[in-house]
Amino acid sequence: MENKINLAETFALLDGPYRPGVIGHYNGDKLQVVKVSGPFVWHRHAETDDFFLVIRGHLTIHLRDRDIELDAGELFVVPRGVEHCPDATEETWVLLIEPDGTPNTGDAGGPLTAEPRDL
Amino acid sequence: MENKINLAETFALLDGPYRPGVIGHYNGDKLQVVKVSGPFVWHRHAETDDFFLVIRGHLTIHLRDRDIELDAGELFVVPRGVEHCPDATEETWVLLIEPDGTPNTGDAGGPLTAEPRDL
Repeated sequence: MENKINLAETFALLDGPYRPGVIGHYNGDKLQVVKVSGPFVWHRHAETDDFFLVIRGHLTIHLRDRDIELDAGELFVVPRGVEHCPDATEETWVLLIEPDGTPNTGDAGGPLTAEPRDL
Repeated sequence: MENKINLAETFALLDGPYRPGVIGHYNGDKLQVVKVSGPFVWHRHAETDDFFLVIRGHLTIHLRDRDIELDAGELFVVPRGVEHCPDATEETWVLLIEPDGTPNTGDAGGPLTAEPRDL
């Protein structure tokens, strides 16, 4: 990483919800920003945990047995293999960390699958 | 991770500057909070990048050829092998991500070396 990253500035570069942008790398992980709005898709990542930190708004991470409710400044790590479905009733900004090559929709695929792109 | 983590609440549990607390894990990494106040020690991590996100205050990361200046909401990843020295003139709250087992003082050792402890 050559320069610092101001998270708020990176969200202005996103072109819509569920269109993540890669802002940097940490070891073999991609650091991504994503706007969440409405329900995503139920999915799981068999090989990796999934790091969520809310920067603005309110994120619900539905799990099969409960919901995790995150305000700005709150984080949750979805353990590998655990089904989850991010959701938000207002536009919500999230910092996501996953290994390079992890598909955003995990095992689910479908129309919300997004190729990683650098911001 | 069983429950969400409110970052601000975790800093209240720290007993002083440069006494990091582990708040969770992501794959093989420890998620840590640390208060920075005054200069740390110059060090490097030969085997890992070092993720810094400022939650409150202002962090300077001295590199040998320049300084990185981070306000709240700004992040920087120090590449593996790069010498760095965190510093802050006011108490500053930082979210740090490093692999489990990474010593906080890297190759430098010395009195600021802290064993990881769970908050």
